[in-house]
Amino acid sequence: MDVIGVSVIAGRSVAGEGAPFHARAAATGDPVDPPFRTATADLVAEACAAAAAAFPTYRARPLHDRADFLTAVAEEIEVLGEALTDRVQLETGLPEARVLGERGRTAAQARLFADVVRRGDFLGLRLDAALPDRTPLPKPDLRLRRVPLGPVAVWGASNFPLAFSTAGGDTVSALAAGCPVIVKGHPAHPGTAELVAHAVTRAAERTGMPAGVFSLLQDGDVSAAKALAVDPRIAAIAFTGSRAGGLALAALAAGRQVPIPVFAELSAVNPVILLPGAVASDAARARLAEGYLTSLTFGAGQLCTNPGLLFVPVGETGDALVAEIAERVRATAGATMLHPGISSAYAVGVAQRAGVTGVVEVGVGSGSALAPAATVHECSLATFAAEPQLAEEVFGAAGLIVRYDDADGLVAALSGLEGQLTATLHGSDSPADLASAAAVLPVVEERSGRVIWNGWPTGVEVTHAMVHGGPYPATTAPSTTSVGTLAIERFLRPVAYQNLPQNLLPEELRDGNPWGVTRMVDGQLS
Amino acid sequence: MDVIGVSVIAGRSVAGEGAPFHARAAATGDPVDPPFRTATADLVAEACAAAAAAFPTYRARPLHDRADFLTAVAEEIEVLGEALTDRVQLETGLPEARVLGERGRTAAQARLFADVVRRGDFLGLRLDAALPDRTPLPKPDLRLRRVPLGPVAVWGASNFPLAFSTAGGDTVSALAAGCPVIVKGHPAHPGTAELVAHAVTRAAERTGMPAGVFSLLQDGDVSAAKALAVDPRIAAIAFTGSRAGGLALAALAAGRQVPIPVFAELSAVNPVILLPGAVASDAARARLAEGYLTSLTFGAGQLCTNPGLLFVPVGETGDALVAEIAERVRATAGATMLHPGISSAYAVGVAQRAGVTGVVEVGVGSGSALAPAATVHECSLATFAAEPQLAEEVFGAAGLIVRYDDADGLVAALSGLEGQLTATLHGSDSPADLASAAAVLPVVEERSGRVIWNGWPTGVEVTHAMVHGGPYPATTAPSTTSVGTLAIERFLRPVAYQNLPQNLLPEELRDGNPWGVTRMVDGQLS
Repeated sequence: MDVIGVSVIAGRSVAGEGAPFHARAAATGDPVDPPFRTATADLVAEACAAAAAAFPTYRARPLHDRADFLTAVAEEIEVLGEALTDRVQLETGLPEARVLGERGRTAAQARLFADVVRRGDFLGLRLDAALPDRTPLPKPDLRLRRVPLGPVAVWGASNFPLAFSTAGGDTVSALAAGCPVIVKGHPAHPGTAELVAHAVTRAAERTGMPAGVFSLLQDGDVSAAKALAVDPRIAAIAFTGSRAGGLALAALAAGRQVPIPVFAELSAVNPVILLPGAVASDAARARLAEGYLTSLTFGAGQLCTNPGLLFVPVGETGDALVAEIAERVRATAGATMLHPGISSAYAVGVAQRAGVTGVVEVGVGSGSALAPAATVHECSLATFAAEPQLAEEVFGAAGLIVRYDDADGLVAALSGLEGQLTATLHGSDSPADLASAAAVLPVVEERSGRVIWNGWPTGVEVTHAMVHGGPYPATTAPSTTSVGTLAIERFLRPVAYQNLPQNLLPEELRDGNPWGVTRMVDGQLS
Repeated sequence: MDVIGVSVIAGRSVAGEGAPFHARAAATGDPVDPPFRTATADLVAEACAAAAAAFPTYRARPLHDRADFLTAVAEEIEVLGEALTDRVQLETGLPEARVLGERGRTAAQARLFADVVRRGDFLGLRLDAALPDRTPLPKPDLRLRRVPLGPVAVWGASNFPLAFSTAGGDTVSALAAGCPVIVKGHPAHPGTAELVAHAVTRAAERTGMPAGVFSLLQDGDVSAAKALAVDPRIAAIAFTGSRAGGLALAALAAGRQVPIPVFAELSAVNPVILLPGAVASDAARARLAEGYLTSLTFGAGQLCTNPGLLFVPVGETGDALVAEIAERVRATAGATMLHPGISSAYAVGVAQRAGVTGVVEVGVGSGSALAPAATVHECSLATFAAEPQLAEEVFGAAGLIVRYDDADGLVAALSGLEGQLTATLHGSDSPADLASAAAVLPVVEERSGRVIWNGWPTGVEVTHAMVHGGPYPATTAPSTTSVGTLAIERFLRPVAYQNLPQNLLPEELRDGNPWGVTRMVDGQLS
C-alpha cells in the first residue's frame, strides 16, 4: 500500500488545499515524496461535524459491535505488514525490532480494549432500590451508568508513531468508551499516520461503523491543531508531548466558551534510586550498569519514562558503579533520533547541563548530528539542590547521576522533585535497605504514578493495573492514566436515571441485568 | 454552645487580626454579634502547613479509624442540637423543617462515607500477575490502588449551610478519601460554620486524628479565599456557588505554578418537560401544578436543582395547566432568602426577564424585599430560542414556562441548552408519550447529569447511584459528582506498584487480600 499524501475525513481521503509539507527521512533529514498538505479550517470543521453526527449512532451500537471494530483495527494494522513498518522506520529512524514491538503493542492494546468493552465493567453500573414507604419522603429508584463524553481529539506523539499516535492508546481507549476520534497527526510521521488511518477506516467499514467515527488531519504548521482544539464539537483532548505544547493546548481548551478536559502527558525525569545494598557487589554493579544503559538509550532515550536521574550513594561502591557506567556509555553508538529538531534540542540540553558548575562528565558515547551520542553526567546532591534546571528533562539519552550521602539527604532531594510518571528503587533485602526504602517510598509515591522495585521504568506494560500518569507536570490530570485499561475512564461521565420505567431505561440498567455485567446494587458489587 | 467569632486552625480557635465582619439575621438584615475576622494570610498559611503535615499521618491511618472519625463528625453535629439549628435559621432564614432535614442529611452523608471507607471498594484495587517466562520480555507483577490527592480546600455554599458547607458533602468525601480539609467559610453563615468546625474538631480529637486534618477559615472579603486557592500545599478545590465565583476560582487554580483540579458546581436551570399525555386530565394537571410550585419554591427556590424551565405543550390542556399554575403561584407567600444580596439579585433577574418582548407574566405571589414573591413567566418556543438570556438561571423561585408545539421543536430547543445538573420528563404510558420520551431522552442525557421521570429535580438523594454533576457549566468537571458515594473519586489518583516485595507493598495489595476488599485480578473482579 502506497502513501498518497492525504488526510482522512470520515472515510474519505482528501489531499486538501492547505500549506504543503514533507515527511523527512530521519536518518538523513531529506524530504520524502509525496508531499502532504495541512488540513484547512474547512476540513477540520468537516471532520468535527462528521464526528458529532456519528456520535449518537456509534455510542448506541451494541458493545460487541464496538469490540469487533477495535479487533478489526488491530487486524487491519497487522495486514499493512512491511508497508507500515518500513514507513515507520523511514520517518522515525527507529530500528526494526523497536518498530515491530511497537506494532505488536498497538494491536494488543486495541484487542485489550475490545475485551474491556465486551466485559462491560467500565460502565460502572450502580442501582439503588426505591423505598416508596420511607418517611418523610419516599426514596426514588436510582440507576447510574457511565456514558461517553463525545468526540475526542487525539494528538499524535512524535516518539510513539504507532502505540501513541493514530490508532494508539488514546485513540482506542476513546473509541472503547464510545467516543468518535479525530487524530491530529504528528508532522514527523505523516505517512505512518495515513497508512494507519486507512486501516482504521477499513475496520470501521468492515464492522459497519458510521464513517465519522474516525478522521485523521494532517498538520504541518499546527494551524489544524489550533482549529481542532477550539471546535465546539470536541468534548475532550488527549495529548502526549512536550510541556510547552501541552500547556499551550490546555490554555486553548480553558479559553473556550465551553472549557473541556485536556489529558496531557507532558514530561518527566523518572528518578531511579540505588540504595547502598544494591551496589555492594561487583556482579550487582555490572547488572545495574547494563540495565541502566539499556533503559537510558532505548529508542535513543526518546521515551517518557526514560531514567533521567540516577541517585547513587557516595563512597567506594558508588564510585565503582559510576566507573562501570562510564566504561559502558563510552561503548555506546548514537541512534538516529526522531527528527532533526529533537536531536538539536538534545544537543542544546546536554551542553547546558555540562556548563553547570559542579557537573562533571562521566562518559559520552560515539555519535553524529542526527544520531547523537548518549551522555552521562554526575553531580553532588548539593549541586543538584542548588541548580533547579538539573531536574529538568533533556529529551534523549542524557543521564544525570546524583551522588547522595544518606537517606535523609536523599529524601530531602526527592521531596523537591516535580510530579513524575515513575520512580524506581533498587535495593537488597538487607534491613538497612528495607528501612531506607520504607522511608523513601511514601515520598516518591506522592510524586509519581508508578513505583518500581529493582527494575527500570522503560517498558510500560499495557494491562489493568498499569498507571502511566502522575502529578503535574507529569500530566495535567493526575487522577488518570493514558496507558492500561483504566485509561477508558478519561472519556466517560456518570449519568443517573431516577424512576425511569423499564422500557425507557438503558438496557444495561434494567431489572434482571440483561447484559450480565457487574453492577453495584445498594452499595454491594454483584 | 455559644458562637465566639473565630476561625479554627488545626483544632485551635483563633479570632485573628483580619478585617472584621458580622453575620446578619436573614429575616431583617441586621448585624449579629459577635463579629468575625477574615483569616489573614498568616492564618491561611498556618492551616495549609498543618494540613500538609497531617496528610501523611492521616492517610496512613487504618480505614476503620478514618470511618470512626466520620461517624464521630455525624455524632458531634447532632450533639450541637438547637444551638446549631437556631443559628442556621438566624443566619439563613431557612425554616426549621428544612434546617432539621438538612442536618439529618449532613449527618447521614458523613455516616454513608464512613461505610464507604469501611468497605474499601473506593480503593479500586487491581492486581496483574507476573509472567516471568514471557518472551521477549517477562511481564512484571503490577498492583494498583487509589491514593488521596493531598489537602483539599472546600468553599462553603450559601444555600446549604450544613449539607454543602463546613462538614458537608465535599468535606466528608475528601476526608473519606484520606485528604485533610480546609474550609473557606461562607460569609453569610459564619456562626454556623464555627459551630460545625468545633464539632469536627471534637470528632478529630475523640478519634485521635492529627489536628491539621481540618481547619475553618472565616472570610468576609474573599482575601482568605484567594490566598487559599493559590497555596502550593492545596491539591484540589471543591466549590458550589455562582458561575462567576466558580470561574474566578478555576482561573486562579489554572494560573498556579502547579495547576490543580477544581470541582466547581456552578449553575443550572434544570429543564422539566411535560409531554402531552402528562397534562391530559384535570387530576393530572392539579398534581403537576402542585408538584411544580412545591419544587419551585422549596427553600425560596435557592437550590441548584430548582426547576427553572418548564416546557408545556401548546393547546387547551397546556393552557389549563398554566391557568392552574397561575392560581397556585398567586397563593404563595415569599420566603426569606439567604441574604440581602441574593434577594436583590433575584429582583433584578425577575425584572430583566419580565422586560423581554414576548415574555408574559403568569402569576406572582405575595412577598417583601427580603422574602420576595415567587414569580412565573411564560413565552413561546420562538421567543425562548431568540432570547438566549431566558435560558440563564435566576437564583430563587422564578419559573419560566416555555410553550412548545411538537416533539421536533422541543428537541431543537433542548439541543440548544447548556449543560445541566438535571433534566426531567413527565409523561403517561401512552405510545405517543413514550415515543416522544424516547426522542427527547438522548438529547437531555447528553446535556445533564441526572434524568428524572414523573418527578421533580429538587431533593437530591445521597446514595450510591446519585449524580449531582453534569456538562459545563453545570460543573467544571463533567466526569464527577459532588453528591453520592461516587464523589470520593474526585480526591483520589491511581498509583501502580511494579515488582514490589510483599513487605514494601501497601497491605491492601499484598497476597491473600488481607483487608478482604474487592480487587480486580487479571481483569476479573473478585
